[in-house]
Amino acid sequence: MTDTTKTTNQQWGGRFSEPVDAFVARFTASVEFDQRMAKQDIQGSIAHGKMLASVGVLTAEERDQIIQGLNEIEEEIARGEFEWSIELEDVHMNIEARLTQKIGITGKKLHTGRSRNDQVATDIRLYMRDEVDFLLEEVTRLQQGILSLAEKEANTIMPGFTHLQTAQPVTFGHHLMAWYEMMQRDYERLVDCRKRINILPLGAAALAGTTYPIDRHMTAELLGFERPTYNSLDSVSDRDFAIEFTSAASIIMMHMSRWAEEMVMWASAQFNFIYLPDRFCTGSSIMPQKKNPDVPELVRGKTGRVYGHLMGLLTLMKSQCLAYNKDNQEDKEPLFDTVDTLKGSLRAFADMIPAIESRKEHMYEAARRGFSTATDLADYLVRQGIAFRDAHEVVGKAVGYGVKEGKDLSEMTLEELQFFGSMIQSDVFDVLTLEGSVAARDHIGGTAPAQVLKAVERAKVELADRLA
Amino acid sequence: MTDTTKTTNQQWGGRFSEPVDAFVARFTASVEFDQRMAKQDIQGSIAHGKMLASVGVLTAEERDQIIQGLNEIEEEIARGEFEWSIELEDVHMNIEARLTQKIGITGKKLHTGRSRNDQVATDIRLYMRDEVDFLLEEVTRLQQGILSLAEKEANTIMPGFTHLQTAQPVTFGHHLMAWYEMMQRDYERLVDCRKRINILPLGAAALAGTTYPIDRHMTAELLGFERPTYNSLDSVSDRDFAIEFTSAASIIMMHMSRWAEEMVMWASAQFNFIYLPDRFCTGSSIMPQKKNPDVPELVRGKTGRVYGHLMGLLTLMKSQCLAYNKDNQEDKEPLFDTVDTLKGSLRAFADMIPAIESRKEHMYEAARRGFSTATDLADYLVRQGIAFRDAHEVVGKAVGYGVKEGKDLSEMTLEELQFFGSMIQSDVFDVLTLEGSVAARDHIGGTAPAQVLKAVERAKVELADRLA
Amino acid sequence: MTDTTKTTNQQWGGRFSEPVDAFVARFTASVEFDQRMAKQDIQGSIAHGKMLASVGVLTAEERDQIIQGLNEIEEEIARGEFEWSIELEDVHMNIEARLTQKIGITGKKLHTGRSRNDQVATDIRLYMRDEVDFLLEEVTRLQQGILSLAEKEANTIMPGFTHLQTAQPVTFGHHLMAWYEMMQRDYERLVDCRKRINILPLGAAALAGTTYPIDRHMTAELLGFERPTYNSLDSVSDRDFAIEFTSAASIIMMHMSRWAEEMVMWASAQFNFIYLPDRFCTGSSIMPQKKNPDVPELVRGKTGRVYGHLMGLLTLMKSQCLAYNKDNQEDKEPLFDTVDTLKGSLRAFADMIPAIESRKEHMYEAARRGFSTATDLADYLVRQGIAFRDAHEVVGKAVGYGVKEGKDLSEMTLEELQFFGSMIQSDVFDVLTLEGSVAARDHIGGTAPAQVLKAVERAKVELADRLA
Amino acid sequence: MTDTTKTTNQQWGGRFSEPVDAFVARFTASVEFDQRMAKQDIQGSIAHGKMLASVGVLTAEERDQIIQGLNEIEEEIARGEFEWSIELEDVHMNIEARLTQKIGITGKKLHTGRSRNDQVATDIRLYMRDEVDFLLEEVTRLQQGILSLAEKEANTIMPGFTHLQTAQPVTFGHHLMAWYEMMQRDYERLVDCRKRINILPLGAAALAGTTYPIDRHMTAELLGFERPTYNSLDSVSDRDFAIEFTSAASIIMMHMSRWAEEMVMWASAQFNFIYLPDRFCTGSSIMPQKKNPDVPELVRGKTGRVYGHLMGLLTLMKSQCLAYNKDNQEDKEPLFDTVDTLKGSLRAFADMIPAIESRKEHMYEAARRGFSTATDLADYLVRQGIAFRDAHEVVGKAVGYGVKEGKDLSEMTLEELQFFGSMIQSDVFDVLTLEGSVAARDHIGGTAPAQVLKAVERAKVELADRLA
Repeated sequence: MTDTTKTTNQQWGGRFSEPVDAFVARFTASVEFDQRMAKQDIQGSIAHGKMLASVGVLTAEERDQIIQGLNEIEEEIARGEFEWSIELEDVHMNIEARLTQKIGITGKKLHTGRSRNDQVATDIRLYMRDEVDFLLEEVTRLQQGILSLAEKEANTIMPGFTHLQTAQPVTFGHHLMAWYEMMQRDYERLVDCRKRINILPLGAAALAGTTYPIDRHMTAELLGFERPTYNSLDSVSDRDFAIEFTSAASIIMMHMSRWAEEMVMWASAQFNFIYLPDRFCTGSSIMPQKKNPDVPELVRGKTGRVYGHLMGLLTLMKSQCLAYNKDNQEDKEPLFDTVDTLKGSLRAFADMIPAIESRKEHMYEAARRGFSTATDLADYLVRQGIAFRDAHEVVGKAVGYGVKEGKDLSEMTLEELQFFGSMIQSDVFDVLTLEGSVAARDHIGGTAPAQVLKAVERAKVELADRLA
Repeated sequence: MTDTTKTTNQQWGGRFSEPVDAFVARFTASVEFDQRMAKQDIQGSIAHGKMLASVGVLTAEERDQIIQGLNEIEEEIARGEFEWSIELEDVHMNIEARLTQKIGITGKKLHTGRSRNDQVATDIRLYMRDEVDFLLEEVTRLQQGILSLAEKEANTIMPGFTHLQTAQPVTFGHHLMAWYEMMQRDYERLVDCRKRINILPLGAAALAGTTYPIDRHMTAELLGFERPTYNSLDSVSDRDFAIEFTSAASIIMMHMSRWAEEMVMWASAQFNFIYLPDRFCTGSSIMPQKKNPDVPELVRGKTGRVYGHLMGLLTLMKSQCLAYNKDNQEDKEPLFDTVDTLKGSLRAFADMIPAIESRKEHMYEAARRGFSTATDLADYLVRQGIAFRDAHEVVGKAVGYGVKEGKDLSEMTLEELQFFGSMIQSDVFDVLTLEGSVAARDHIGGTAPAQVLKAVERAKVELADRLA
Repeated sequence: MTDTTKTTNQQWGGRFSEPVDAFVARFTASVEFDQRMAKQDIQGSIAHGKMLASVGVLTAEERDQIIQGLNEIEEEIARGEFEWSIELEDVHMNIEARLTQKIGITGKKLHTGRSRNDQVATDIRLYMRDEVDFLLEEVTRLQQGILSLAEKEANTIMPGFTHLQTAQPVTFGHHLMAWYEMMQRDYERLVDCRKRINILPLGAAALAGTTYPIDRHMTAELLGFERPTYNSLDSVSDRDFAIEFTSAASIIMMHMSRWAEEMVMWASAQFNFIYLPDRFCTGSSIMPQKKNPDVPELVRGKTGRVYGHLMGLLTLMKSQCLAYNKDNQEDKEPLFDTVDTLKGSLRAFADMIPAIESRKEHMYEAARRGFSTATDLADYLVRQGIAFRDAHEVVGKAVGYGVKEGKDLSEMTLEELQFFGSMIQSDVFDVLTLEGSVAARDHIGGTAPAQVLKAVERAKVELADRLA
Repeated sequence: MTDTTKTTNQQWGGRFSEPVDAFVARFTASVEFDQRMAKQDIQGSIAHGKMLASVGVLTAEERDQIIQGLNEIEEEIARGEFEWSIELEDVHMNIEARLTQKIGITGKKLHTGRSRNDQVATDIRLYMRDEVDFLLEEVTRLQQGILSLAEKEANTIMPGFTHLQTAQPVTFGHHLMAWYEMMQRDYERLVDCRKRINILPLGAAALAGTTYPIDRHMTAELLGFERPTYNSLDSVSDRDFAIEFTSAASIIMMHMSRWAEEMVMWASAQFNFIYLPDRFCTGSSIMPQKKNPDVPELVRGKTGRVYGHLMGLLTLMKSQCLAYNKDNQEDKEPLFDTVDTLKGSLRAFADMIPAIESRKEHMYEAARRGFSTATDLADYLVRQGIAFRDAHEVVGKAVGYGVKEGKDLSEMTLEELQFFGSMIQSDVFDVLTLEGSVAARDHIGGTAPAQVLKAVERAKVELADRLA
């Protein structure tokens, strides 16, 4: 049942009396997924080599040989010519073995003063930093897309919902600026998360530090890290940044699932608030008339995937003794898939959202029905001197009457309205229009078109500052 | 920004005025992962074709052309010659397009009376049924491995722990039989889950059934399903079986994480209870003396992955309107990865556990220390007529004395013992031995070697019945 | 900082040199929540006492004293007169201490041959069995409610949705029978779960069994358990049943979240498919016109709670060494809250669903629009000899024309239709009606009213058999 | 089945034709748990009242009446005299009804320009800000406790583990400083989270803002918020801060679960590295000798609870349409329980950790065995000019020999060592001592006692700055 590998070519084989089982070798190998970090592995090795030379552990010549060898390997990988070997377990061993093949014994000196434990911790942080930087750009691009649509729709009136019941009229631009604000927090969370990624674990070696006279500040500087970590055991066992990133990613996906839900609903025949261009939809194999909002649906579905990765990483770390354990190899695939899912989903929405076309007449008509200006009537009554709670009661009765008679508030006669509140005068109809209602909410954060445009301006400055 | 595919060769393109965005096509395509179900897709299509012919929708000749074409395609796929196309979205469209290429217009008739919605639901159930059947075999093999070790170790005394403190002596065989029982429940849960997988959704078409005179009982019989589903909307929107399976899988992984934790601890220098053969371990790139129990650690780590998939699937289905939504495409990757993870982990443990070697002398010595027979002394006092709670108090004081003096109970003199309880006689030393202690727990479920052997026999019959 | 309890009245204090910190006593105590199992604790103790007497460990007189004392305590608890003490840690110690207070030293003999580890495992299984039995009744009541509405609405035509786009007409009764089927699987899962709850752990004692000549079969029979467990270590460390139950509960909540989503949407002004009686809704503190579907929204929200408990329990057990650890005390609160949440949510829906009123005219009108009979037209073309895929293309073009012209298929003239397919004849209009469309899906699982009524009949028999 | 409340005294009853079902009233009420925010509700109302007066909506007299009334109510609540009513649904309605009872119609004016949607969002943010501030203090106290122990144990040698196999000697103080670093990141995450809590949603009203001339900057300032929110829809629908907090809490619990795991293991007879004072332990009801590390076990178990709440909150928000939905009421219980769990767990560890006593001799002896200085030998060989990878191979063979012969490296003769590497000289024994090994790792983050003391000093400054 258990065939074995021919030779013990694992680089740690000296102490072992029998080779690793072939299935076990495959089962425990990580090279199939961690080769994604090859660029970062080489980047880290070059910095490590420079530092070793600077403190006298390598000669300048050895350093240069190593750097040249690694650069060539990077090109081999880029050209797809590198032969990855499962027997060499992981990206680190594969690259080091190739280096030694190329430059001989000097290649073996590169691993001085480090261990795979701190090496992989460094690689994954470098990788995550690159990806977070890209994601920050994508978040920005998505915010720009939202902003451009919000500006265009600053005056478009639609029903605002709570409990999916018509509540008060809002503008579509205002609704979109809520999306902008959600993504703004996402941006900030990624920036905060990046601070905790950008610390250098290299130098922790296996878990205790090393006996070589290493200069961790130099390595940190070469790699653009804020500083070296302060504790070697923590350096090799910490995966907080993976959890924190996946948590931030979960919130991003949650936000997009909410927008997706809204877009799917708005694109339904019943709402008919928006038109999604055909290029973001697909059809049905059986129903020729179907045009399905696949992109928002799929993004909504992908939310589960990222939540799952978060749960997986939290489980992974629960109750794990310090310092490094093999369990930690399982951190990579969920992280990589989270990154890929985020990239795809952000791109899909950044492309699609600015292309949304609003069905203004349907939005307006929907807002007109549903007693959406009932609060305005109550506020009107308050201005006549009635306590809000009592005004609420009066309007409630008028609405009950309207439901029975099939009339919206603005469709009632003054006499009808006065039946519920004798202080109501003909100027009441000013506050019962949709335009009057939205315009009246004219304070910071309110739905008045003027406020929406101010919010758009504020956001533009925010994004401009960010890109500056 | 958004390049587009050249032609609208998606098979639902009639209604569309612009082709799908190229990125969107990739983003929404599933063929890269759902091609794993090609065998089941073909199996389902053949049964569907036979049924259509039987009710007169296809001629016998058309049926035979379709069957032959599909069989050839299956061979092309097996030989790795099939060209999968992302533009054709999924496994279903890819196979159907190839069929039409091979046999012409008749190929287009196969999709009569079905939709991709019921087709994919059928494929995934066929696939899961196959995989569950294989997993049941692997669970059985693992149980056999545990059993063989348990039988060998039925008399091996080790400390039994609660709170990781020495509690009472048990036998190693007894401990292993606890593992057996855990896996026995896992077996039963998979069997129960299989019942709910093995129902045929085909015939539900898009969501409402079809106008063709289909015979769903016939299709169910041809495919070995228990019966057709009773409601078409439910048929295309139900993913319970995916969640139920992943939940059963999560419990399996949880069980193995517990054994992994024990094995890692037992293999530590501090416990030194077991020896794991080298072929299940790996070494360190920096520490030449290390021999790491990678296999149990990795299985423990993979627990998070499966928990995550469960959370992902639950999230996926939360608040989803009936009937089919694109979100559901996201059910496959977590299921496939759960299946793969289970297979690998079960195999790894089925290979490794019977090869574990116990360090009997260390186990025995550990049991001898730690006052593990204190309960036996309390029981002895009860038999002398003292209420259990009072006996507990007496023994507690004797242990407190032992801790201070560095003496186990069996190392105290009769006089010392009598100081705490004057009714203690010289026959007390019979109950203070480890052998006496374990042998005395001689009832069903107890740790007495005789009971362990009975449990092994019962289990052997259980497995024999299963395989019969 | 750390004040301490005055006396070491914990019943295990003999070995301890200083009392437990007062905060620690509170932090580790469970009596505030586990007192919920008092009834089951007493029930288990009575059975244990009877068994001990039967095997000669207690006299008949002692047994009777114990039983009488425990019965009195149960009444004290029922009357709210029992004084629960945190210093006595848990429900078990509280009851035992009170028993000893009442009947003296005999009370202390009850704990012979058992430990809190197997006692609590027994209590929680007894408790869960009771609750599952009640939940099975509630699930049945909910299914009855769905059935009564489905029967009433067997002929009500509504649009069937996929991707929330109008797909094909279905009947409302058919849609409701999908809900019925979902709950049917939930019923079966609870029944399967109950099998694995209903096994007796008592007799495992701390972890190894006991030296007393106990008769576990007798105890199992007295308590209505299927059998005693087969392994003592497993008995005290197994919490599978808690996870399996919470997983089944999660699927139930997931199902109800899907219905909730549909009800909230259907109750919106845009859909306007159903009317929810006022008594299941609440209003707004600011918007007098609002009538919010609070009950379905809240049930949807509670889904997260149960998912969370499932994740919590899985995390709890991950990597836990055998046998009992204090961690396991954390199993109770999530289980209790899951039970309460299920009870409330099932009751709310069982009360509300049969009271839903359909807005038939809105449903019908919605189905009439949206080209919902496009598949019927394609099927018509197939019956004229066209391959399905080609018919799909033809209909796709007709729909494209209809979208531009604002005409549904049934509103086009024969000439218009013939422009897309010359073989179309005047009999086409028979298949383009909603009534014709639903009636044509007349096979098991299909949406034809006749099939819905058959499904209702089948379901009635199912429920009748269950209650018989 | 469904009894109803006598009167429609809900304050939104005007529009309703039948009272809410009594069970529904209980099922949807939140006052049983949200009364915990009474203090913050009053605090927010006072600020709102002051602002309303400042903009002329209330008179100064009305404002003063309201403030006095609310202050009295706060005292009633503090004295336990306040009567909470489920019919009044929530904390807001209960307090407002009492206010109106006390001061008459003016009380009804308080709700002008706000809604419960923005009111509850404000309350929960005020509440969370208070709790986070307290938790920051507790984290600090825990870090101080770790620090005091670490300083004491800066020279204590123990084995450092990877894969739970002895890897290299470290100092106990160094290990503890890893714990300090973990908690340091937790502190920073809470600080970052607080920034996003500390924004004022009040003024968003139901979802669109209000028609009253409110001054949100003033309210923000009165309540100590950084600024008002920028979008009203987002203000009432945002629960990111709840998820972000629970995520930070999950990482804290994860960290403590790792320490718990280590403490439980270290307190086992097999490790015997530490002594936990009796006041943090409990005993067994059956085994008189047991002393169980209940506190770390329980904290480890509570990890699942917090993970579960995180998953619950993520599920809650998934796919939720804007703006407010009743689902959101479900945010409170998981948040409150997370806060309580964190407080208890942090306190338990802050009390316990500084009281841990190390068993130095056992730690030292464990480090002496297990070839923990093998890396030092390899490094020695490298300094003799051998490439690291080759040195690794040489030492691997020496260890293999040692395993067979039962000799640690430092126990071999020079001749034995030279058999594996002829360049080994007698100075090798300097690097093979534990003291030499740890002292040699003398760089930032390394385990050398000197570095540990430096790290302690740096941490002291950090904490001092924080408290300054």
